[in-house]
Amino acid sequence: MSSASSSSGSAYSAAFRCIRGCPGTTPLHAPVFRCPTCGALFEVAHDLDALRSRSAAEWKSLLAARAQPGPVDRETSQSGVWAHHEWVMPWLERENIVSTGEGRSPLLYARRAGADLGVPELFVKQCGTSHTGSFKDLGMTVLVSVVNQAKKQGLLDVLAIACASTGDTSAALAAYGALAGLPVCVLLPKGLVSTAQLVQPLAHGAKVFALDTDFDGCMRVVSELAARGRVYLANSMNALRIEGQKTVAFEIAAQLGWEVPDWVVLPSGNLGNASALFAGFALMRALGVTSSLPRLLVAQAEAANPMVRAVAAGASEIASIKAGETLATAIRIGAPVSGERAMRALREMNGVAEDATEDELADAAARADVRGLYVCPQTAVALAALRKARAKGHVAETDRVVLVSTAHGLKFTEMKLGYAEGTLRGVTSRNPNKPIDCAADADMVASLLVSG
Amino acid sequence: MSSASSSSGSAYSAAFRCIRGCPGTTPLHAPVFRCPTCGALFEVAHDLDALRSRSAAEWKSLLAARAQPGPVDRETSQSGVWAHHEWVMPWLERENIVSTGEGRSPLLYARRAGADLGVPELFVKQCGTSHTGSFKDLGMTVLVSVVNQAKKQGLLDVLAIACASTGDTSAALAAYGALAGLPVCVLLPKGLVSTAQLVQPLAHGAKVFALDTDFDGCMRVVSELAARGRVYLANSMNALRIEGQKTVAFEIAAQLGWEVPDWVVLPSGNLGNASALFAGFALMRALGVTSSLPRLLVAQAEAANPMVRAVAAGASEIASIKAGETLATAIRIGAPVSGERAMRALREMNGVAEDATEDELADAAARADVRGLYVCPQTAVALAALRKARAKGHVAETDRVVLVSTAHGLKFTEMKLGYAEGTLRGVTSRNPNKPIDCAADADMVASLLVSG
Repeated sequence: MSSASSSSGSAYSAAFRCIRGCPGTTPLHAPVFRCPTCGALFEVAHDLDALRSRSAAEWKSLLAARAQPGPVDRETSQSGVWAHHEWVMPWLERENIVSTGEGRSPLLYARRAGADLGVPELFVKQCGTSHTGSFKDLGMTVLVSVVNQAKKQGLLDVLAIACASTGDTSAALAAYGALAGLPVCVLLPKGLVSTAQLVQPLAHGAKVFALDTDFDGCMRVVSELAARGRVYLANSMNALRIEGQKTVAFEIAAQLGWEVPDWVVLPSGNLGNASALFAGFALMRALGVTSSLPRLLVAQAEAANPMVRAVAAGASEIASIKAGETLATAIRIGAPVSGERAMRALREMNGVAEDATEDELADAAARADVRGLYVCPQTAVALAALRKARAKGHVAETDRVVLVSTAHGLKFTEMKLGYAEGTLRGVTSRNPNKPIDCAADADMVASLLVSG
Repeated sequence: MSSASSSSGSAYSAAFRCIRGCPGTTPLHAPVFRCPTCGALFEVAHDLDALRSRSAAEWKSLLAARAQPGPVDRETSQSGVWAHHEWVMPWLERENIVSTGEGRSPLLYARRAGADLGVPELFVKQCGTSHTGSFKDLGMTVLVSVVNQAKKQGLLDVLAIACASTGDTSAALAAYGALAGLPVCVLLPKGLVSTAQLVQPLAHGAKVFALDTDFDGCMRVVSELAARGRVYLANSMNALRIEGQKTVAFEIAAQLGWEVPDWVVLPSGNLGNASALFAGFALMRALGVTSSLPRLLVAQAEAANPMVRAVAAGASEIASIKAGETLATAIRIGAPVSGERAMRALREMNGVAEDATEDELADAAARADVRGLYVCPQTAVALAALRKARAKGHVAETDRVVLVSTAHGLKFTEMKLGYAEGTLRGVTSRNPNKPIDCAADADMVASLLVSG
C-alpha cells in the first residue's frame, strides 16, 4: 500500500460529537457512546479542513496507488477499510490495526437478476464475501483496533469487549478479538439461540454467556457492565463501527469509476448502515471526490418495518414497534438504535422505504439464486423492495442501481433448504428443486435432461 | 480495469497439449480432455514468445493499472482472474466471460497463528472468501466462460455442463451456470449425500441426479455422457480449470510486492491445485516477472495420503490407495486425477509432502480459530502439515510462508460444532468452548469474566 505509512498521526483528526449538535467533543478511545447532555448517540466528526488540504485529484490518485497489491502489508493485509485510513480513523496508529483484509469486496454486475427485476443496470456490492461472512467486519476492524490501541496506551482497562448479539455482530467481534488476542464476551438469552448459531464466537474462543432473560435483558446487563467500565461495548450504538461501514460508499463509487449510482438499496434493521452510507457519500462530496449523493432505498421486512411506517405516515421520527417473526433475522428490529441518524440520511438522500413479506423475500431469494446470486434473507428483502420501487416508478429502467448484499448466503443453509423442500412458513415455494432419483445409466440421464 | 479492452483477441494464443509431450495441439473449446495418442491429461500451452513481447516491467505496470477499481466493468466485475486475461485464456472474448469478480482474495498476515506454529512470517491466502466459498470459483469462471463462448460461436452443442461431485465443484459449477443461464447437471450417489450438502446446486437451479451407484459409478456415467457429446465435462480432468486456479500464484506474488515466498503450503486431494500453482509460478518466472519458484509443501489427510506415501517411498509415480474416512472431505481422494502433473510440480518446486491425522487436523483448526482464522478442515490439514514440516526443519523460522486456504469455514459448521461439543470421532477436543449459563446479573457475569 503506497504512502500508507504517512496515513496515521497528526495531520488529520476526529472525535465523537452529539448527532443533535450539542457542544463539545469526546475522544474516540473514551468508552462513552451517548451525548452527556441530551442522551442522543454520537457520531464521529472529522476535521474536514485538514482533509481538504489534499485535492480531490490527489485523494483519488493516493487511493489508486493503495489499490495496487503489495508490498507486504503486515498491519492491514491490504484492507479496503484501511486504504481510507485518514477518512476513517486518523487517530489510529497503523501498528495497532486489527484487520482481516476486509473490504475490497466485488461489485458484481448482476445481468440476469437485474433483467428479471426490470433493472438492467443492477450491481450487487458483495459485503458478505468476507472473513466472517457479513458486512460487520467493516465496522469491527475499526472498533477492535481502537480498543487495541487504547489498551496499549493505557487509556482503557476492561475485562473484555462485549456485545449482546445472536448473529453477525458476535461472530465478527469474536474473530477480530481472537486475531488481536483481546478477550471477547457475548451475552445471549438462554434457550433462544442454538449452538449452531453460536459456532463462530465459540470457535473463536469468546466467552458466551447464556443469561436467564430475553434479548432486552441481555442488552441491559451488557450496558450496565459497560457503564461500570468492566467491558467495552461493541453493540451498534458505538459510532466507531459506522466509520468502517461507511467505506462501502467509498468502494462503490471507486468501483464505478468515481461515479455515484442513481440508487443504493440497503437491507435495514438497526439502521446503522443507512447512517454509514450517508456519512460515506457525504464525505466524498465534501472532499469533491464525487459531486452528488445517490438516492437511498431502505428495505425492511414487513414484520419489522418501523421506518417504512414512519415514512408512510409522513412522520419525522420512527416510532418503535414490536417486531414479528421473519426469515430476515438480522433485521428483525422494532426499535432501531440508529433511527434518528437514518431518518436524516433518508431525507438528505431523497430516499424511499419499502418492505417485503416473508413470501416476497423468499421468492426474491429463489429468483436471484437461480440467476447466479446466493443471497441471505436480508439481501432478499432488498431485492423484493427494489422490485416494488421499480413497479411504483421510483426506480426507472435506466437507473444505475447498487444493491448492498449484507451477508453470505452460506450462513442461511436452513432457509434455502426449507425453500427447496417447501417447508417455510408463510412461503409458497414456486420453484422448488429436489434431487431426481435415476438409474446409473447415461441414456436415462440424457433423456431426463432433454425432457427439461 | 484500464487497458482491459485490448486484452482479448489475436495477439496471444493457447491450446491444449499432452502433458507427456505427445505432438499436436487441440483447440481449447474442444470437449476433449485426454491426449488421443497416450491417454494422459492435457495442459494448456501458451505462446510464450508472444507473451514475452511485453517486458516484465510492462506486465507489472499493466497489472497494477488493472488492480485499480473502476471504471464500470460489466464483463468481469473487476475479477482477479481476468485481470490476467492474456496469461489465462487469450482466446476468450471479454463479452463472453462469466464472472463473479472472483480472485482478489485477501492475503491475511496471520500473526498469532503463525507465532503458534513457530512461523512468524505466515500469510494465509483466503481463497474461500469468494462467491461460492471455495477456490473452485477461480477455475470455474474459465471453464464456464469457454463453454459460453463455444456455444455462442456454434462450436459446442450440449444439453448441459456436468460434473460428478458432492461438494465445492458442483456448487461453483451451478453458480456460474446460473449466472450465464447455461444448464447444469450434477450427478451424485443416491443416499450418500444429504440435501444440506446439495443446497448450493439446488438453490442455483442445477439438475441434481441421485444415481443408484457409488461415486465411481457417477464418474462413469458423466464420462460416458461427455464422450457422446451430450454434456460438457466440468470435473478436474478438464485442464481449463487449472488456468484459472493458477492465478492464485499471480496474486500471491503481487501481494508480496512481486516477491516469491519461501514456501507455499497447499491442502491436496486431486492435486489439480499443485499443478496450477506450479504453472502459475513457472509462467511468471518465464516472463521475468519473478525470478524463482517457492518450495511446495503438499498437505494431505493421513486417511487419503497417496502422494505422501509416494514421496516417502521415493517413487516417481503415485500409486492409488483406498481413501479412508476423514473430516477433510474435499481432499478424501485415493487416486488423484492430477497426480502425474503434481509429481512434476513437486520435483520442480523442491517440495515435500506431509500428512495429518484427524486429531491433528482438528487440533490445528481449533488452534487457528482461537487466533482469529476460521479454517475449513482442508486448510487445517495444511496447518498441521506446516507444524510438522517446521518441526522437521524443512521450514525455517525465518521463512516466509504462504498457506492457501481453500474453502470458507462457514461451509463446515458441523465440524466446528462437533469440536466445541467434543463429539468428533478420533478427535480429542483439547479446548472445547460451550455457552456458560448465568443469571441475568452484571456482577455475576463480571465475576465469571475475572475468574477466566
